[in-house]
Amino acid sequence: MITLEQIRQISIASPSKIVMLVIDGLGGLPEPKTGETELETAFTPHLDYLAKNGICGLTDPVSRGITPGSGPGHLALFGYDPLKFTIGRGVLEALGIGFELRENDIAARGNFCAVDDQGLITDRRAGRITTEKCTELCELLGHITLEGVELSVLPVSGHRFLLALRGEGLAAELSDTDPQKTGAAPGMTLAMEPQAKHTAHIANKFVDEAQKILAQHRPANMILLRGFSKLPQIPSMGEIYKLTPAAIARYPMYKGLAKLVGMKIFETDDGIEEELRVLSACYSEHDFFYVHVKETDSAGEDGDFSRKVKVIEQVDLALPQLLNLKPDVIIVTGDHSTPALLKGHSWHPVPVLLYSQWCRTDEVGQFSESACASGGLGRFPAVDIMPLAMANALKLIKFGA
Amino acid sequence: MITLEQIRQISIASPSKIVMLVIDGLGGLPEPKTGETELETAFTPHLDYLAKNGICGLTDPVSRGITPGSGPGHLALFGYDPLKFTIGRGVLEALGIGFELRENDIAARGNFCAVDDQGLITDRRAGRITTEKCTELCELLGHITLEGVELSVLPVSGHRFLLALRGEGLAAELSDTDPQKTGAAPGMTLAMEPQAKHTAHIANKFVDEAQKILAQHRPANMILLRGFSKLPQIPSMGEIYKLTPAAIARYPMYKGLAKLVGMKIFETDDGIEEELRVLSACYSEHDFFYVHVKETDSAGEDGDFSRKVKVIEQVDLALPQLLNLKPDVIIVTGDHSTPALLKGHSWHPVPVLLYSQWCRTDEVGQFSESACASGGLGRFPAVDIMPLAMANALKLIKFGA
Repeated sequence: MITLEQIRQISIASPSKIVMLVIDGLGGLPEPKTGETELETAFTPHLDYLAKNGICGLTDPVSRGITPGSGPGHLALFGYDPLKFTIGRGVLEALGIGFELRENDIAARGNFCAVDDQGLITDRRAGRITTEKCTELCELLGHITLEGVELSVLPVSGHRFLLALRGEGLAAELSDTDPQKTGAAPGMTLAMEPQAKHTAHIANKFVDEAQKILAQHRPANMILLRGFSKLPQIPSMGEIYKLTPAAIARYPMYKGLAKLVGMKIFETDDGIEEELRVLSACYSEHDFFYVHVKETDSAGEDGDFSRKVKVIEQVDLALPQLLNLKPDVIIVTGDHSTPALLKGHSWHPVPVLLYSQWCRTDEVGQFSESACASGGLGRFPAVDIMPLAMANALKLIKFGA
Repeated sequence: MITLEQIRQISIASPSKIVMLVIDGLGGLPEPKTGETELETAFTPHLDYLAKNGICGLTDPVSRGITPGSGPGHLALFGYDPLKFTIGRGVLEALGIGFELRENDIAARGNFCAVDDQGLITDRRAGRITTEKCTELCELLGHITLEGVELSVLPVSGHRFLLALRGEGLAAELSDTDPQKTGAAPGMTLAMEPQAKHTAHIANKFVDEAQKILAQHRPANMILLRGFSKLPQIPSMGEIYKLTPAAIARYPMYKGLAKLVGMKIFETDDGIEEELRVLSACYSEHDFFYVHVKETDSAGEDGDFSRKVKVIEQVDLALPQLLNLKPDVIIVTGDHSTPALLKGHSWHPVPVLLYSQWCRTDEVGQFSESACASGGLGRFPAVDIMPLAMANALKLIKFGA
């Protein structure tokens, strides 16, 4: 596989523009009655036009058979091998709620849980308390003070919260306190490397204090911490591709992921039309645009086949706004599949279309899973989409003389 | 490439069941008169049904253009990169005759050979003596005693035998004694690493003793040793995939390979019907089943096109027995191609079909090399079959959150 450093050596800045439209959870499975997937069911004349005049294929975001989380799925789209660049669970929670982690901050995912009088876990999710209750308890824990460390305890949703530590000499090489089963006592966090001893001490002290504060708050009378992590060190898209990338996304997780790779974030309201208005407004200032549509994934997760179809149709309807900008390269794809039939992310490969003057078009006339399966791009790792986009934008020079 | 450790982290135990039917040497080449391969010539309504309702593709067991031995071919099917996990020639001979190697045993492949009065090799295969003669000579060599080492000398076939050493402090880093040409003298084995000096001494002493015993047995008056090796350290399928895997195979080599990756071996008589009876009998006790059909490969090796066709038809005819068990995932493939026209293993990619409720079917309506070439799974490394099977059995959770 080509390395980012090898790509950096051949990438050049140029005025050409790339738009990557990510329809979250795009890929699906056929509805048994019709034999057609969400994308195949949707009326999508503009996507079909792009497929007919562009080149199509299917991508594996992580590896065949592997169901990607949003983090790995997006890293692959941005050209970073998700098997190499991993994002800790704590960091992902921080990204998800828009908490601005700094370089040496430590983030952990917290769960409120229930323990009995012997201190053994009876419910790892504290009876799934409400987010309101979680917010209340986080505020209480936020009053804990630990010397030399700035502490943030922020609600995520339900029983889940974020613990962030800021201070000198913190390290993330810490074991989970979550034994992942009931009937066991929460563990102490242990330093997996010598440099993390100080942080382990702090984290354990936090848990002790939290337990005292929560004693009267059954079923949320204890906490579990896991996925201690720091922001991963990722070379920016500016560095690797010589791009000035912009992100147009509504949800914190995707803005966080985009920021991680050095994109400038443009705020937007809900809906593809609004997103494309923002795109038009910032179009002259950047040369790479990541536009994120979330609702396809949400509909898929809810098992709502027809709502997913409808969102795809809304995206299609808004496409002329994008086409009018005449980007040099348009990519339309997803970060993974979310078939409504499975009500969740899945391992199925994701349709991708690339539209540019130089794409060497194929026989595909419709943007669908089955048509893309015989597309000219073949079936390939999603991490190769960025080099393809760059090539079609004439932003990569020859490799080797 | 995703690592086994990364797969281990996302695999979960569940009641769903996977059956992997391995038709040895499945892939073929077209008979010039008909233009159809063995698989294409065979009447296979049940395989075609699975292909039509499943998803198909072509796999490369090792790498494009590389002809796999049975060891690498099977390791790939079980999800182990055959370029990383290698099996020494000595160990493979032991597996092939069902000799139960223990963890620190050393195995070497032996050849009886002919040397002249100057000790120079005149025939590396001792005039291809019969297996009976080989058995006789092995018995003679079995009487050699070497201090501190338990010795086994076992016939394989023709001029080939197995030498196994059991004892304290043995190491396998030894050079071959076989110069691989006539006119040269057999070499001494040399320790390639300091810890193998003791074993080199023992092996050379064995050769000296063997030469004395064989002096009157021309053309089998000397031996050559190569491929000194220990059992490779392979994490079990139980560990990696959380499966309780079972193997239904008749021949020692395949049982040995299955055992190597932690499968429980079920004895079976010849014939696919008998194998599927064994499968039914142990079906409730396990969640992964490797069923091995050998006769396709044997027919291919013999250059017997029509016998290979017939064996494929027998497998197809027996398939309802398998379908009646309603496994969650069925894989049908081969460990490599063995075209009757080539009379041996070949590098040609191997047809594979995956049948499950969640497979996202493709346009393929027939199980054949040419149809699989345009299948939805594309052309891919055989080592990815296991993750795909696991995914379709819903035994893999998300990678990254």
